[in-house]
Amino acid sequence: MSDEPVKYTLPDSEIPTHWVNLMADLPGPASPPLNPATQEPAGPDDLTPIFPMGLIMQEVATDPEVEIPEEVRDIYKRWRPSPLFRAHRLERALDTPAHIYYKYEGGSPAGSHKPNSAVPQAFENKKAGVERLVTETGAGQWGSALALACSLFDLECEVFMVGASYDQKPYRRSMMEAWGAKVHRSPSNETQAGRANAEHDTGSLGIAISEAVEVAAGDGRTNYALGSVLNHVCMHQTVIGQEAMAQMAMAGEEPDVVIGCVGGGSNFAGLAFPFMRRRLREGASTRFLAAEPAACPTLTRGVYRYDFGDTSGMTPLLPMYTLGHDFVPPPLHAGGLRYHGDSPLLCGLVKAGLIDAVAYRQNETFEAAVRFARTEGQLPAPEPAHAIRATIEEAEAAREAGEPRVLLFGLCGHGHFDMSAYDAYLSGTLEDIEFSESEMEAALERLPEAPALA
Amino acid sequence: MSDEPVKYTLPDSEIPTHWVNLMADLPGPASPPLNPATQEPAGPDDLTPIFPMGLIMQEVATDPEVEIPEEVRDIYKRWRPSPLFRAHRLERALDTPAHIYYKYEGGSPAGSHKPNSAVPQAFENKKAGVERLVTETGAGQWGSALALACSLFDLECEVFMVGASYDQKPYRRSMMEAWGAKVHRSPSNETQAGRANAEHDTGSLGIAISEAVEVAAGDGRTNYALGSVLNHVCMHQTVIGQEAMAQMAMAGEEPDVVIGCVGGGSNFAGLAFPFMRRRLREGASTRFLAAEPAACPTLTRGVYRYDFGDTSGMTPLLPMYTLGHDFVPPPLHAGGLRYHGDSPLLCGLVKAGLIDAVAYRQNETFEAAVRFARTEGQLPAPEPAHAIRATIEEAEAAREAGEPRVLLFGLCGHGHFDMSAYDAYLSGTLEDIEFSESEMEAALERLPEAPALA
Repeated sequence: MSDEPVKYTLPDSEIPTHWVNLMADLPGPASPPLNPATQEPAGPDDLTPIFPMGLIMQEVATDPEVEIPEEVRDIYKRWRPSPLFRAHRLERALDTPAHIYYKYEGGSPAGSHKPNSAVPQAFENKKAGVERLVTETGAGQWGSALALACSLFDLECEVFMVGASYDQKPYRRSMMEAWGAKVHRSPSNETQAGRANAEHDTGSLGIAISEAVEVAAGDGRTNYALGSVLNHVCMHQTVIGQEAMAQMAMAGEEPDVVIGCVGGGSNFAGLAFPFMRRRLREGASTRFLAAEPAACPTLTRGVYRYDFGDTSGMTPLLPMYTLGHDFVPPPLHAGGLRYHGDSPLLCGLVKAGLIDAVAYRQNETFEAAVRFARTEGQLPAPEPAHAIRATIEEAEAAREAGEPRVLLFGLCGHGHFDMSAYDAYLSGTLEDIEFSESEMEAALERLPEAPALA
Repeated sequence: MSDEPVKYTLPDSEIPTHWVNLMADLPGPASPPLNPATQEPAGPDDLTPIFPMGLIMQEVATDPEVEIPEEVRDIYKRWRPSPLFRAHRLERALDTPAHIYYKYEGGSPAGSHKPNSAVPQAFENKKAGVERLVTETGAGQWGSALALACSLFDLECEVFMVGASYDQKPYRRSMMEAWGAKVHRSPSNETQAGRANAEHDTGSLGIAISEAVEVAAGDGRTNYALGSVLNHVCMHQTVIGQEAMAQMAMAGEEPDVVIGCVGGGSNFAGLAFPFMRRRLREGASTRFLAAEPAACPTLTRGVYRYDFGDTSGMTPLLPMYTLGHDFVPPPLHAGGLRYHGDSPLLCGLVKAGLIDAVAYRQNETFEAAVRFARTEGQLPAPEPAHAIRATIEEAEAAREAGEPRVLLFGLCGHGHFDMSAYDAYLSGTLEDIEFSESEMEAALERLPEAPALA
C-alpha cells in the first residue's frame, strides 16, 4: 500500500471515558436560561416536568468533565471510535497545499452523530423509570437516532417530524418505524401547538419542539428529549472532538481551522469544544468556523438576545443568536439546519469572537457535496455539505496564500435519505431559496421581553 | 465497559494482501464454461471483447492466491477491514446458547460488499485503457458500487437497472447519478435484448446482463463488468472471509456454521470460501448454509445443468443450478437475489454436498430483519435478511439441542434504500410472492443443448 494513510482508527479502548463540559472553561459567567414568567434564572425545578434528574444535573454541571456511564460506552462501541480520514483525493482535485481531514459520523446505525446523545438520553430516562420519550425531528436524523436508542433501552418513542422533511424524506419515517417509533407530521392535530400553527404547513423545528414538549409535559410517564441546543446535548457529542484530537495526533498534525455545520449546534460543539478547550487553556491558535444555510442564517444575520427555544414559548428563555422564535425558515433540504436559534454555549463563543460564521446557499453546498462524493467516495448529507463548502473555500484560500494549512471538518452524516435533494440539484431544479428579511424583522418584533445580554 | 466485546476490529495493516482462489482446492477438475457455438471449453479469447486481460487471467487463475494490487488495497482502506460483531443482544432476545457473529459490509460508501469487486474491476479496466464500463444492477447495490469505483478511477459508467428495482428504489438511481453514472431502466429501448424482452416489464438480472453485454461487445472503448457469478468476482470478495477468520480468532472461537444469502453467489463466496478452504485442507467440520428467496429458489429447486448467464444467450454456457436462463423471477424486494442461476464454483460445492441451501419467503425474512434491527440496531438490506432468518432458525435449533453452537453470518449491506419494503412489511401489505413452478418448467424446456454435467 502507499505510505499515505487515508484513515486513522482508534481501538475501542480509546473511546472517551468522559464528556468535555466546556462550561467550566468560559472566561466569564454564562448568561443563565430564564424562567419566562419570573425572569429569574431557570433551575432544575423548571426542567423536571420534561427531563430526568440525571440529564438535568448534566445540563447544569460545572465540572470540566462528566463521566460516561458504562452502559452508554457499551453501546458507543457499536460504531465508535469513528474514523478520521485524510482527504488526499479532494486535496489533489483542488490543487491545494492544504491538508484536509474529516471526522466521519455517518457509520452509526442511524447514519449521523445524533446517537451519541440519543443513547445517554435514553439511558438516563430508562434509569429514572420513564416509559416513553417524545421528541421533534427536522431532517429525521435526530428522530431516527432516538428511535434506535429507545429500541435498545426498550422505551416507547414518539416523534413529531417537521412537515417539509416528512414530505421530502419518507424513508426517514420508515426507518423510525422499523425501530418501533410512532411518527407524526408536524404541525399535527395531536397538540394545541400543532393546531395553532396549522397555517405553517411545512412546519419548523420550533413548532415541532412545542408539540413534543406539550405532550411530555402533560403525561407523567413520558419525558421529552432534545437533539441539540442544550448544554448536555452538546456535551454528549464531545466524544467526536476528543477522538479527533487523538487521531490528529496520530497524523502528527494540528488543525489550523476546525469547521462544522450548525443547526442547533450539537454537531459543531461535539467536534470543536475539545479543541476550543485547548485554545482557551493553552492559547492554541486554532480558528473555528461555523457554516450555516443562507436561508436560515442564525449566526450571521440573527440578533443576540433572550428568546424561546420553541415557537409557542413553552421553554425557558435562552441567551442566543435568534431569528425570532416564530420565524418559519423556508423548506430547504438541509432540514437539520432549519432552526431559528442555536446552542447558547456556542452563541456565547460566537459573540466573544472565538468562532466565525459563514452562510451558504443550497446550490453551492450541493456542488461541494457532489465534488466530495466524486473524489472521496462518501455521499454527504446536505447539512455537512455546508461544512464541505466552507472547507473547499478555506483550501482555495490556502492555495492563493501558498500556505499548507491544516483543515479539519465534521462529516456528521451520510446522505442516503437525501437523494431527492441530489436529484433536484443534478437536474438543475434546486432553488436557492431566499431568506426573508422582512419575516425575520417581524419575528424579531415579537421577541419576548427579557433582560438585555452583555 | 463490560467485558463482553461486541466488535472485533483489525488494523489497516491486516487488510488481506491476496485474494483466495478456491479453484486450486477443488477435489476434481471443474466443469469449464463452454463456447455456446462450438461446445468447446471457453478460453480467454471468448472473453476479450468484454473483459480486460487482467480480469480474464484472474478468472482462469489456478494459483491458490492472487495478489491484490496496491492501488486496490489503498481504496479498500477507506472502509476495510470491516468490523465483526458479536450479536449478544439478539442472542439474549432468542434465549439461545448459540454464539452469533456477523461480518458487516454495509460500512462501504456504496453500502454493501459490492465495492470489494467493483474497485479491482475498475482498476484493471483503467489499466487496460478502457474508457467506459457498462453493467447491470438488480437491487442497485452493484450498480452503485461500480458507479463509485468508476468515479474514483475516472471512468464513464452506464448501468442497466432491473425495472422492478428501478421503480422500488428510485434513490439507488440517484446515488449512481450522484457519482456520475448514467442509468437506464431495463428492459430498455437502447438495445436489441431490451426491445426483445419489452413484455417482461419488471425485468430480470438476466435481461439486464444481456443489455449490458450487448453494449459492451459493440463498442471498442467500452467493457462490461459483472457483479457476481464469475470466479474473479467471487475471489475479490474473499477479503471478507479472510478478515472474518482473523476476527473469529480474536474472539477465540471457530464458526460451526457459516451462513450467507445467495443471489449470484459473490457475497456467500466472499465470506465462506476462506473457511471452505480450511475445511477442504484441514478437515475442519464447518457447515455452510446458503439462504435464498422462495420466489427465486435456484439452489433448492433448480436443475444442475449448463445454461446461459443471461436471458438472450450471449454469455458462455456455465455449469450451474438454474431455473432456466429466460425464467423471470417475480418482483420481490430482495432484488439482489433475483437471478436464475448462481456462481458455478458455488454450485459445484452445493452439488458436492459441501454447502446446504434453504429458501425463505418475504414476510419471514422481514420479520427477521425487524427483529435484528430492534435488538442489534443495524437495519439490514432485504438480501442479508435471508441470512438473518437462517441464523435465527439455527440459533433456535441450538436452543432446542441445548448446544452452544457458534454461528457466523454475512450482513452484506444496509437497508437504507429498501425502506419501501419495510413500509410494506410493517403495514401488513407485503406479499409472499409465489414461485411459478410451471414457468420454471417451461423455462427448463428451453435450456440450451450441452453436455451433461457429472
